[in-house]
Amino acid sequence: MQKILLDGSWRDAVSPSSTFHSFDPRENKSLTERSFPVSAWDELEQMIQAGSQAAEELLDVPSALIADFLDTYAAQIESEAQQLAKIAQEETGLEATSRFLEKELPRTIFQLREAAKSASSARWTEPTIASQANIRSMRGPLGGPVVVLGPNNFPFAYNGVSGGDFASAIAAGNPVIAKGHPSHPYTSQRLAIIAQKACDSVGLPRATVQFFYETKRETGLKLVSHPQVGAVGFTGSRPAGMALKKAAEEAGKPIYLEMSSVNPVFVLSEALKARSSEIAEALHLSCTSESGQFCTKPGLIVAEGTEAGLAFSDELEELFSKTAPGVLLSQSGQDAIAAAVGTMLEAGATVLTGGRPSPTKHIGYLPTLLRISATEFLKRPTPLQSEAFGPVALVVIAANPDETRAIARTLQGNLTASIFSGSSGENEKAYAPLARTLRVKAGRLLNDKVPTGVTPCPAMNHGGPYPATGHPGFTAVGFPASMLRFSALHCYDNVREDRLPPILRNRNPISGLLRLVDGEYTDQDLPA
Amino acid sequence: MQKILLDGSWRDAVSPSSTFHSFDPRENKSLTERSFPVSAWDELEQMIQAGSQAAEELLDVPSALIADFLDTYAAQIESEAQQLAKIAQEETGLEATSRFLEKELPRTIFQLREAAKSASSARWTEPTIASQANIRSMRGPLGGPVVVLGPNNFPFAYNGVSGGDFASAIAAGNPVIAKGHPSHPYTSQRLAIIAQKACDSVGLPRATVQFFYETKRETGLKLVSHPQVGAVGFTGSRPAGMALKKAAEEAGKPIYLEMSSVNPVFVLSEALKARSSEIAEALHLSCTSESGQFCTKPGLIVAEGTEAGLAFSDELEELFSKTAPGVLLSQSGQDAIAAAVGTMLEAGATVLTGGRPSPTKHIGYLPTLLRISATEFLKRPTPLQSEAFGPVALVVIAANPDETRAIARTLQGNLTASIFSGSSGENEKAYAPLARTLRVKAGRLLNDKVPTGVTPCPAMNHGGPYPATGHPGFTAVGFPASMLRFSALHCYDNVREDRLPPILRNRNPISGLLRLVDGEYTDQDLPA
Repeated sequence: MQKILLDGSWRDAVSPSSTFHSFDPRENKSLTERSFPVSAWDELEQMIQAGSQAAEELLDVPSALIADFLDTYAAQIESEAQQLAKIAQEETGLEATSRFLEKELPRTIFQLREAAKSASSARWTEPTIASQANIRSMRGPLGGPVVVLGPNNFPFAYNGVSGGDFASAIAAGNPVIAKGHPSHPYTSQRLAIIAQKACDSVGLPRATVQFFYETKRETGLKLVSHPQVGAVGFTGSRPAGMALKKAAEEAGKPIYLEMSSVNPVFVLSEALKARSSEIAEALHLSCTSESGQFCTKPGLIVAEGTEAGLAFSDELEELFSKTAPGVLLSQSGQDAIAAAVGTMLEAGATVLTGGRPSPTKHIGYLPTLLRISATEFLKRPTPLQSEAFGPVALVVIAANPDETRAIARTLQGNLTASIFSGSSGENEKAYAPLARTLRVKAGRLLNDKVPTGVTPCPAMNHGGPYPATGHPGFTAVGFPASMLRFSALHCYDNVREDRLPPILRNRNPISGLLRLVDGEYTDQDLPA
Repeated sequence: MQKILLDGSWRDAVSPSSTFHSFDPRENKSLTERSFPVSAWDELEQMIQAGSQAAEELLDVPSALIADFLDTYAAQIESEAQQLAKIAQEETGLEATSRFLEKELPRTIFQLREAAKSASSARWTEPTIASQANIRSMRGPLGGPVVVLGPNNFPFAYNGVSGGDFASAIAAGNPVIAKGHPSHPYTSQRLAIIAQKACDSVGLPRATVQFFYETKRETGLKLVSHPQVGAVGFTGSRPAGMALKKAAEEAGKPIYLEMSSVNPVFVLSEALKARSSEIAEALHLSCTSESGQFCTKPGLIVAEGTEAGLAFSDELEELFSKTAPGVLLSQSGQDAIAAAVGTMLEAGATVLTGGRPSPTKHIGYLPTLLRISATEFLKRPTPLQSEAFGPVALVVIAANPDETRAIARTLQGNLTASIFSGSSGENEKAYAPLARTLRVKAGRLLNDKVPTGVTPCPAMNHGGPYPATGHPGFTAVGFPASMLRFSALHCYDNVREDRLPPILRNRNPISGLLRLVDGEYTDQDLPA
């Protein structure tokens, strides 16, 4: 049986609840050469104890060392990229080269380096000084380990032990207890091995990174609600997220969730007139690439104008129907897509193309386009906003801008909302009220662009109102903003100069670091 | 019956569940000349509808207008200060001059003006631009009304319709639905009248400020969990806060709570040796001023050194026993103090002085000092951390620094933690580990200073880990930081220049506003 990483050592799991294997979705078969333990509570509790000790030690660790760890880890992932991509392809069915080597691994490495830069620059600490009152504050770590639970669809960029949540929690000075995902346990183990070596090589507390593969549902709920846990980061399905949210919040633990989103796209009348084929092609790709297994995949497309909308849905239908079904991550993923499609059909949508699992050896679902009129949509907007995590979209035909906006008003919280529009006349008048409605329903508002492809830049918001996430004020992507989630506000009142964290002393220790001193930003020292 | 403020008009309450009167705690009698309605659900639902409409309108209101409202409101409170202080004294028993005119009203006015400045400067929006990707983000309003529930003990500075939560929610562009507190309904009504006039005079949406006096518990829970609510701010008792937290969080609503805190004070051996009388006097005042009805009142005092600690508790005892009992806000407050003292006695504490309601006409509780040894404290640390919201403190005698730190380790989350220490030798060695333990257990760490007296400056953290509040990353006091609670992160991806909020356009519309452009802070325009 494969080992877990507890307090700096790879150890045998003690009395695991059960074991499981990796699964190759292209070959539709279990990879039985390795078995992975489902961890029992005792083991997780030991991780919490070791993590708490590490959390306390990390309070005194210079941020340069944390940055060093993140950079070392990134470099090592880079040097083992080929091997990592190969393992991940086998476990996920996603392409080693086009997906992992060209996109996801570079992004993962970039994120870790951005996290390192953010840790060093200390800008995320927002140092603030009221000199007369001698009150000083900054952001700092939470004081307990952060539990990170990654999703199935990004074995690197969102992995609990290498992704954005991991990088932001570590960069803010917290240790991490990472859960791998059963969709890619061996990939996650490789990452954890590299992380732990990097941790040892720079000399961080040994329990800064701990790792297990899986645990039973109720044990997971116990983990996220443990009093010594600092916070929780989760990316995954809404049912799992909601259960974790309840458990963590009842225990007073901050939890950051990225749960579900249908990423509505509004194609206004003038855009349809001017460039319907171009938009159809872009949306088709956005819906079906990598089998639509992206949290920003557009699942709801509102086409404005009855005739033009129907013609547009015909164009989309043709593109979808000609597309070969890709590989899905797992059988349970396929089942969940079928369930969501079923819910939408029951609520009145009709299938234009697809609508069933693919008749292939590999696990898959046929690229699927559904359609409904705005009138019907508005009768049952909730089931018609079911997320199908695959190559599935529902087109809603809106007769006019009033219907378009009425649809927008029924939307739940989403990660993104996109508007394709013309450049003059009617659309320009309709844009402002529609955008105002969508603005507070999505974290990222797009113009003339599909929502897939999350650029990891400081201005990104990969977040949004509930139920897309648990809180509209936080992003899971983009440094330093994503670190805010894993920080506490630390205020020092009349604390003696030599006992203050260096960043808050009179002398500014970091060249160029802006501190808010008496209401003004400055990188200058305070008079001694 | 007194009217409520709904959608810009003072109206009769429709089918209130019941009515209540103000109460004069000095005279221990009801003020029957006015009766106030306990609002039924229909009324609150109308407020939510009107508030939602206002939230949408506010998205297009320039922040200068919001600032104008806050300034106008502040000026009007200033000009009516005498009358407001008089009303509040009658309803709360707190002093019109020494408390309200000299302290709380100036602070309230200052906070509103700080909020106005923050709204104008727009620094709180944290504008961030990635120019190449053309992705831009800023903080903005939540898109729904913020429900603010104020406490009994600050009729102005924390009032739902004039305090810090109100000011930060409004400054961030959200409408507010404010609940007055039954301890001071007429004071709150006067404030709401002034607020609504200010709102009308500057031309904000009429439902920007709405106000009611009281509602039944289950109706309040329904209010905070309504899908259209943006967020909730609450200051008050832990039981009420916990019920609201559960309801709001189950509905996916951000809720900010300031619930309870015993504000531990550690007096280390050298400090006792050097200046025990000075410290005893400061702590005595901090515990008993205004009958100890402050959320930052020190309720737990750890004195280090058996002999010196006992002598110190004798000094405190003498000061407490010579102090006349002040007026408490309400009978239920007196009952809650008695219950908390009872819990601590049951857990092994002994009464040195006080320990019962005051034998006065007015409602009060005798200044009360309890004592216990560290050994006994460590056996039952949870009940011995009960908050008594009155002139009550528990002294714990620690034999040595190990015991002192062991006590620190058992503490729950607090607003503050204070360390009084010597300036050399033993204490300096003991300080670092003790401070490290306390750092992640309190929002504000103090040296040689009592925790009462919350300076409203940008560096203040009036917050702390659960259960002092619901989240360790937010402060309820200090601008612009407190506004973060009532904001969402709004990202614009490829949005056309003329459709962007002015703050994110190429031309920086606010002189001196720093924007994070491609990783660097600058107040310059972007090239067009």
